[in-house]
Amino acid sequence: MARCDELAACSEEAERINRPFASPAMKAAQELVGRWILQAGMNASRDNIGNVRGRYEAAAPGSPTLLMGSHLDTVRGAGRYDGMLGVLVAIASVQALHDVGHRLPFGIEVVAFADEEGMRFGSTYLGSRALAGTFSPADLNLVDAHGVSLAQAIIAFDGDPSRVAEDRWSGGDLLGYIETHIEQGPVLEARRLPVGVVTAIAGQNRYALTLKGEAGHAGTVPMNGRRDALAAAAEIVLAVEAEALARPGLVGTVGKLDVFPGATNVIPGQVDMSLDVRHSEDAARIETCAHILERAQDVGAQRNVTVTVRPLSENAAVPCSPRLSELLSRAVEDAGLEVLHLPSGAGHDGVAIASITEIGMLFVRCRGGVSHSPAESVTVDDVAIAIDVLDHFIERLAAA
Amino acid sequence: MARCDELAACSEEAERINRPFASPAMKAAQELVGRWILQAGMNASRDNIGNVRGRYEAAAPGSPTLLMGSHLDTVRGAGRYDGMLGVLVAIASVQALHDVGHRLPFGIEVVAFADEEGMRFGSTYLGSRALAGTFSPADLNLVDAHGVSLAQAIIAFDGDPSRVAEDRWSGGDLLGYIETHIEQGPVLEARRLPVGVVTAIAGQNRYALTLKGEAGHAGTVPMNGRRDALAAAAEIVLAVEAEALARPGLVGTVGKLDVFPGATNVIPGQVDMSLDVRHSEDAARIETCAHILERAQDVGAQRNVTVTVRPLSENAAVPCSPRLSELLSRAVEDAGLEVLHLPSGAGHDGVAIASITEIGMLFVRCRGGVSHSPAESVTVDDVAIAIDVLDHFIERLAAA
Repeated sequence: MARCDELAACSEEAERINRPFASPAMKAAQELVGRWILQAGMNASRDNIGNVRGRYEAAAPGSPTLLMGSHLDTVRGAGRYDGMLGVLVAIASVQALHDVGHRLPFGIEVVAFADEEGMRFGSTYLGSRALAGTFSPADLNLVDAHGVSLAQAIIAFDGDPSRVAEDRWSGGDLLGYIETHIEQGPVLEARRLPVGVVTAIAGQNRYALTLKGEAGHAGTVPMNGRRDALAAAAEIVLAVEAEALARPGLVGTVGKLDVFPGATNVIPGQVDMSLDVRHSEDAARIETCAHILERAQDVGAQRNVTVTVRPLSENAAVPCSPRLSELLSRAVEDAGLEVLHLPSGAGHDGVAIASITEIGMLFVRCRGGVSHSPAESVTVDDVAIAIDVLDHFIERLAAA
Repeated sequence: MARCDELAACSEEAERINRPFASPAMKAAQELVGRWILQAGMNASRDNIGNVRGRYEAAAPGSPTLLMGSHLDTVRGAGRYDGMLGVLVAIASVQALHDVGHRLPFGIEVVAFADEEGMRFGSTYLGSRALAGTFSPADLNLVDAHGVSLAQAIIAFDGDPSRVAEDRWSGGDLLGYIETHIEQGPVLEARRLPVGVVTAIAGQNRYALTLKGEAGHAGTVPMNGRRDALAAAAEIVLAVEAEALARPGLVGTVGKLDVFPGATNVIPGQVDMSLDVRHSEDAARIETCAHILERAQDVGAQRNVTVTVRPLSENAAVPCSPRLSELLSRAVEDAGLEVLHLPSGAGHDGVAIASITEIGMLFVRCRGGVSHSPAESVTVDDVAIAIDVLDHFIERLAAA
């Protein structure tokens, strides 16, 4: 927890945590993490994209490797745990092995990814995609808000942009990737459990909907002659909610809704709105999206409001490994706790790493389900339990 | 119609019509109107607030007066008819009397009001309130966007701000006030009628509603744990529509709705929305407002979203005079047309003048019900009919 506080001090802004990719604040955070990696008996290195890696060698050369980690970058106005916690508990687990001089039948590589939130270049998972070998060289041309390209940022960050492909995992067989992360949701708190085992990282569809009706004078156009784009939008918002409630585990959200012209005395002529649908099973998500969009068209047809749907993104669900999840579950039981399985509605570095190895995730309870906020909060006890679970997991993996 | 075009050229902007109170464009428009008043055989004068008045004397001194008119100011990006048409048809009616040397048992005073839209000082009916003697001296301290006070604007407009009270009607008995105006709505067009007789200027309530729920991550907060302010707002938008549809003649509009934080992946924590409710009968309006606000509180209670209601304004309906409306209706029949009675959902100078005399209003069909837009459009035939109806009205009033 003290280390979380030390990392929190590495920020581009004095009054809030803001640690974008390849920033001086990130460099300061990496120096701390590099030091802690060395203290835990690991070798420390840094790849071209800027991931800090710590390697704890296996008992015998040529053994496979377990990856563990999370990310060090943050959103603007972040909390102290989203990302960093997963790096620090991984280091703590290795520290426990190192303290007693215990070597395993596999190596452990702790990775502190350089960019997961994508705040600076609008491109998520830069760090984990580099490790997975799925980094796209075209992204080197992305520019940040100050006109600095990703290639320039990598150079300023002591990397070589022409050699990011070399960051791809090349250390031999992998046993999997384990990420510990705060839940960013209220489920563990509601169930009074400190940790939970993630079943899958939910798939997600995002759409932009534009509703075009007809603006008019709020005093002079009779109700039955109106083509009110906001009334149509209201029906769609409630249809999204109803469809999501009808299917367990599904979440559907209209988070953005803009009304035009947006004046008290003018009937809304146009509404632009977002739609975000997630589920840990792709079939459920795809079917619900189809239902919602069909209902949106029905609403438009009934109200003589045109509904235009623009798909923005579609990401398939990334299931966690049954094998790793089973071991994590047994480790939770070893710690004397009830096992709760839950999906992750948010994306994580595991999404990228899943292309090279199986992934498993452990969620830690966070107060009020709050993340991406200075109010982000976890307890010392819960973090201690998470480290204990990881220790049991490593024991079980070594015995498997 | 040519005069409407001439007035349209009097604008503060080259590319669109913009004629605020006491502007050079308004001065140019007033010079034209003053000239036309003289041509129609009237005396022309200008009061302190800046209304242009034309007086057509009665057959005998000491006779009562009929007021006719509308306003010369416009919104920004206005059309050619809202306001101006009522001034010009009144002048045309007097012109017809003057052309044949016909004097009536009453005088006619045509008034071109200086400010109805209230675009410059945010205070409507400055012109008609001065004539009605309800001008508030405190308004002299209002300032426009350039920091010019209303008092300064009146001086620059050749008026004396300390003598606005003298603008109050002092010409003896009044027979009433007749205003011709474009409908600003689609009813006449839908009924295929060129003119209609207004029953009342609708009363209006305006509210600002603030809904506070709880923001959260769109991916990680389950549906049944949400306090989504936008979902609550959607229910209220539809309740407004349902309540309005349930009561003939009522209009209810949510024209403005802002979502916070307004991001695709964040559950809306707060919504600010407007509510505008109008009806020509006060009891109907008041009862509907009560129903809507009650339903809003029910929605909030069910969803654990706090609903705060701030009343912004409440204006009682202003009924048109049954006597003047009856004469206008007979005049419409004289012109060989079906009589349609309809309320005015928008406010007009008659609202202010109603405090000193009975009012009557004649609506003229406008294309698509469009107003406050360059697309505002009326036909030559419809305007000719309106002038014909006014002529018949004046004959009938003289014979009454």
